[in-house]
Amino acid sequence: MKKDHSEKPHPAEAVSDALSRRLPGYYRHLREMENAGAEYVSSKALAASMGLTDSQVRRDLSLFGGFGRYGLGYPVAGLCASLGDILDIRRAHNCVIIGAGNIGRAVALYPGFREKGFLISAIFDNDPAIVGKAIGGAQVLHVSELEGYASRNKIEIAVIATPLACAQEIMDVLASAHVHGVWNFVPVDLDAPPEIEVCNVHLSDSLLALTFRMHEKRVMKHQEEWTGGRV
Amino acid sequence: MKKDHSEKPHPAEAVSDALSRRLPGYYRHLREMENAGAEYVSSKALAASMGLTDSQVRRDLSLFGGFGRYGLGYPVAGLCASLGDILDIRRAHNCVIIGAGNIGRAVALYPGFREKGFLISAIFDNDPAIVGKAIGGAQVLHVSELEGYASRNKIEIAVIATPLACAQEIMDVLASAHVHGVWNFVPVDLDAPPEIEVCNVHLSDSLLALTFRMHEKRVMKHQEEWTGGRV
Repeated sequence: MKKDHSEKPHPAEAVSDALSRRLPGYYRHLREMENAGAEYVSSKALAASMGLTDSQVRRDLSLFGGFGRYGLGYPVAGLCASLGDILDIRRAHNCVIIGAGNIGRAVALYPGFREKGFLISAIFDNDPAIVGKAIGGAQVLHVSELEGYASRNKIEIAVIATPLACAQEIMDVLASAHVHGVWNFVPVDLDAPPEIEVCNVHLSDSLLALTFRMHEKRVMKHQEEWTGGRV
Repeated sequence: MKKDHSEKPHPAEAVSDALSRRLPGYYRHLREMENAGAEYVSSKALAASMGLTDSQVRRDLSLFGGFGRYGLGYPVAGLCASLGDILDIRRAHNCVIIGAGNIGRAVALYPGFREKGFLISAIFDNDPAIVGKAIGGAQVLHVSELEGYASRNKIEIAVIATPLACAQEIMDVLASAHVHGVWNFVPVDLDAPPEIEVCNVHLSDSLLALTFRMHEKRVMKHQEEWTGGRV
């Protein structure tokens, strides 16, 4: 029995990757403003905190029915609530982690997830030395129990933090168990059936994007010095 | 004395965010192909592995002087080497981590970083219970030593994995120590001087992008059921 959340506000059309990546940032900044007691925020102030232009902010938010009031700006609490609905985090999600190594443990012990309603009830591993123990309130079970557990407990989100060699096999088990989303920390692009949403955190890719930008900055500076700023 | 790496191939113009995020993926897939013994790869095969279109792949790679040969495709080893230069990972980088909590430890113990030449020599924390110990071969030092250590050891990259409240203060210390890049795991957008490149890994934002996509998929499916697939 899946719950029907389709009554919640949501844009009718598919949203671009870039915007879907910006939405959590809007939510985070608006929550900070709400906690700081702000009632209204201008598109200009929101743009400055997000590192975007005013017009980008207005365009993004209009897609979700967020409209500022002339001279006042956007109502912070209302926009927070709408974004929370769109991001679907105003309810709890049942989650499991597969792989109790350093990354799996760090995710299990990250306080921000439970606060946001991501309830990690079990961690799966194949190491007999840790199966039967607990990490951050979650029981460690043998990976052979994953499919049955995920089906029985209506697990929505699975975090994959296994060695590379078994990540696809785990993905296939999760597909059989009908999870809805996979948060993948393994540096491989998994094959998933279309009904499962996969979000990758490829840590090495992120680090390489940093070294790329550092290198680019150095080259630009060097070129500027050569040309005296004239290009 | 900064080393000059500007002789390495690099596009003369600033590269879009989207492409800078794709580059590490190209490198990762090409390295896999190289390790599997592939000599040439077609734009089609590379596009399939990346989830892109052929023309996107050809456009992306042409920016970096990568040109396929008719009937053969791209030379895998050559393209790997060029991308490695562009990403600037064919040399070692001196790194430190600030914050020896779960995330800091997971980064310190992640085997992939050392293999790629990211040498983490020290981890900084203010907890007297762990200062003086070692994590994954790196010494844990008191955070008061950070500025001196980073300057003396020509630290290029700092990983910030502290509690939220002190992240900006650490950023300011790193700016004084003239690090070139910051890999930030704290869910806050730091103020950094323009000469420092910052790459954020906002884990909660990534998880919220996943729940957004899961919600979107459910809404779309519901709409399809309502309209019988006609929109």
